[in-house]
Amino acid sequence: MSINRRQFMKNAIAAGMAGTATMLGSRSAFSAVHDPVGEAQADLFRKFKGNVVLLPSKYGGYVQAMDLSTPETLAWYSYGLHGIDMPIPHHIAAMPSKDPYKGFDFYQTMQPPAAPYVNENSPEWRNRGDFKMFKMRYDGSGKQNSITVVNDIGETTGMSLGVHVSIGVGENANKYVAFADGQKDMVLITDIGDNPKIVKAFRADYDPVARQLNISHVFPDSTTGKFDYVGRKGMKTSHEAMLGEELMPADPTAVFVDAFTWHPTLPFGAILIRRLGCCAIVDTRTWEVVSLLSTAKGSPDNFPLVKQTGFTWTFAVPSVLTPLHEAGFVTSGEYFVACNNVLQNNIAVYRSTDENPNKWKKETFVEGFGTKYLPLHMGNVPDSRFAFFTMWARKPNNGYICKVDTKTWKVVAKWDTGPDPHTCDCTVDGKYMTTVYSGHQAGQSGLVVINIANDKIEARLPCPGGMHDHVVVPESWEGLKYSRSTSV
Amino acid sequence: MSINRRQFMKNAIAAGMAGTATMLGSRSAFSAVHDPVGEAQADLFRKFKGNVVLLPSKYGGYVQAMDLSTPETLAWYSYGLHGIDMPIPHHIAAMPSKDPYKGFDFYQTMQPPAAPYVNENSPEWRNRGDFKMFKMRYDGSGKQNSITVVNDIGETTGMSLGVHVSIGVGENANKYVAFADGQKDMVLITDIGDNPKIVKAFRADYDPVARQLNISHVFPDSTTGKFDYVGRKGMKTSHEAMLGEELMPADPTAVFVDAFTWHPTLPFGAILIRRLGCCAIVDTRTWEVVSLLSTAKGSPDNFPLVKQTGFTWTFAVPSVLTPLHEAGFVTSGEYFVACNNVLQNNIAVYRSTDENPNKWKKETFVEGFGTKYLPLHMGNVPDSRFAFFTMWARKPNNGYICKVDTKTWKVVAKWDTGPDPHTCDCTVDGKYMTTVYSGHQAGQSGLVVINIANDKIEARLPCPGGMHDHVVVPESWEGLKYSRSTSV
Repeated sequence: MSINRRQFMKNAIAAGMAGTATMLGSRSAFSAVHDPVGEAQADLFRKFKGNVVLLPSKYGGYVQAMDLSTPETLAWYSYGLHGIDMPIPHHIAAMPSKDPYKGFDFYQTMQPPAAPYVNENSPEWRNRGDFKMFKMRYDGSGKQNSITVVNDIGETTGMSLGVHVSIGVGENANKYVAFADGQKDMVLITDIGDNPKIVKAFRADYDPVARQLNISHVFPDSTTGKFDYVGRKGMKTSHEAMLGEELMPADPTAVFVDAFTWHPTLPFGAILIRRLGCCAIVDTRTWEVVSLLSTAKGSPDNFPLVKQTGFTWTFAVPSVLTPLHEAGFVTSGEYFVACNNVLQNNIAVYRSTDENPNKWKKETFVEGFGTKYLPLHMGNVPDSRFAFFTMWARKPNNGYICKVDTKTWKVVAKWDTGPDPHTCDCTVDGKYMTTVYSGHQAGQSGLVVINIANDKIEARLPCPGGMHDHVVVPESWEGLKYSRSTSV
Repeated sequence: MSINRRQFMKNAIAAGMAGTATMLGSRSAFSAVHDPVGEAQADLFRKFKGNVVLLPSKYGGYVQAMDLSTPETLAWYSYGLHGIDMPIPHHIAAMPSKDPYKGFDFYQTMQPPAAPYVNENSPEWRNRGDFKMFKMRYDGSGKQNSITVVNDIGETTGMSLGVHVSIGVGENANKYVAFADGQKDMVLITDIGDNPKIVKAFRADYDPVARQLNISHVFPDSTTGKFDYVGRKGMKTSHEAMLGEELMPADPTAVFVDAFTWHPTLPFGAILIRRLGCCAIVDTRTWEVVSLLSTAKGSPDNFPLVKQTGFTWTFAVPSVLTPLHEAGFVTSGEYFVACNNVLQNNIAVYRSTDENPNKWKKETFVEGFGTKYLPLHMGNVPDSRFAFFTMWARKPNNGYICKVDTKTWKVVAKWDTGPDPHTCDCTVDGKYMTTVYSGHQAGQSGLVVINIANDKIEARLPCPGGMHDHVVVPESWEGLKYSRSTSV
């Protein structure tokens, strides 16, 4: 006797219509995995159809693809299959897909921190994990879903970076992906192929005597075509800087490069430099560093270029009024927004429409966060009408999510979604903001879905194992502009 | 400025009542972690209030406590903190708690399989994980929830077993917890203290020449008071037998002891012996082995005791018509039910009310599962009106959950909840059956909640990382009778 889902369905329908007994002579309540017909929660979650959410579990060592509309885990992949002792999947970005249920590609970075956050800074993790970057593929076209590795980009390029990854948009759409790392202070740009080619790499070093920042192009070995920065090679610091540690790096040249974010309309990208509260604007046509924005309140709009020597741009950084964490563009590209924190807790708002980034000016600051709440991550919406920000707070404080009106740059709504809030990412229809909280890495944690129009929390789902990032698979290159590309 | 949740709440209420602006001058939508007032999903999930579900993630290396009513992850604990390379949390049982949100204790076993199921039987896992048993504690009384280890029971007793754990009920309530292991063919009974004391241990060995099963008491070293079976010591087989492997064990003495389940009213427990399709009934007053049930259709109700020599009971096992997987009692104790599979796919139903287990007789079989679907796990309800069973099937088949009427012993409902279904456990009010599916360890996975009265699926939640077990924290010792004690 063979029972399959199609058969089940037929019998359930037959039973419902004709009142006859289903197979096995039983009253059968049927549910299919992909079509939760008749399931009570399905009515509530149906409006999220089309949204596949990727959630990396830092301390679970896997990434899951979640269908927000069923809701269920569609598939997951354990990076333990690569022989790493306690792999730590960190940041993530997804390529656009017209039908994410059928398939999509995504990028995953992995961290090797000596000081992660499980039970505060557990020594148990000191020598575990590894730096890795993977191109991954979700396949939902068969009988059972699966996630596989397409390329181990660290091995392919010889450079392994463990923090934010972001895919090019606008003028850089369908071309590039950027990886960054704050232990190595490097950024790598590759193409988006299945066997990625090195496009450009940067390294940032602070000269504490001269008070200057040097940003250099770095080049692969000409004989191998690869870098020599796999695994822990190239580290300045033993662990990713915790919030506040920007003020006292063990290596004085360390600047904690955190991400590369892409301008949605102009050929620019920004290298985010936590320690110095600076963002280096790069011309993506030439990969030259064209400006160094200083995002603190009270500092100049940018710091001057002192000299360019070969492939090194040297900027004067006479003072650091505050570190920053994340920074990026709103979907329209009209504003570049930087989350200053640790010393100043505010959000700098630059107008970023001029083709010369040295003319970008701070127009205003989002303020009122006091000393306890640190602006951390940013979430965009398609029409740039609002920007969402994570206000992180140290344990045992929860932190919160806030919605900022981009006309007034005032906070218009806020939610205490749970302890240790991390990233915000918009659904494909632009109607909902998804956000994750990680319970300071072992406490309350989950995924929350906020209605952007009426501020209602529409859904909350459990999610253990620690998430520092998540992404909703975008449906198009335009959709990618509000999905972890222009901001992180 | 200080914003805390209480303050948020006050302001939100004030704003709602008086129409005044909340703090920061914003329109603030507030949500507390434990009281999801105003969240859309809360209306749907509120009926599950009081149910905290523990979900071990085999390939995530952690256990999470999930509040089914918010729903959110309340806390999780990574066993990676114990220095184990890819720990594999396997089976679980929870002590009763009047208020699980405030706190409860639970037991967790861990597996070291050479052949787990990530990407079928991945060689990447061969030497990872470890045998462990932990007493754990959830604390929800403070500002942030936490899970901690109370005792490493393997270290304390010198015996580490990695499969089912079950807590005594009825005459054995508030006394004992039992651990079992199919690689070592051992069972350990300890008390339920925070520093557990060894009560009794068993070892089972098959003699393939004599066709006899020897079940022996084993004793700790008299000088240390401990066994010498920590970690991989004492293994007969390198990995937990996969379904079907019962037919061809590498070690001919191996019998694949899987669990110890407790009679809810009489002073008996059952040692489940997969390979031989047998259950050894133990008198928990003396820990003597009093009967060996043979659960296959066509075999005698029990096999005869050949001899007792010291602390070894020898039973004749002249034939094995089928292996079994799980077996246990319905909540009332009226029936002992055994999931025969691999050769026979049926469920044997013994009447188990006689004070002499040698008089327990097979009354009937639940049948009609064909060759593809294997009876695997069992879920009880408070009034014993129904029993739920997992019908497991090999990839790419999904398997299903079925509900059996205990008056007729016929299947009356079935649900294709998703691929790779595992355990069933009842909510504390007896109204809902929770069940997990694990997607053959990397595919679709989640938790499903079925309305026992009307067969409707009331909720589905995503859950990645692989679950082979789960438990709803019971509210009382009576509640424990339908929570992974009488059956697994």
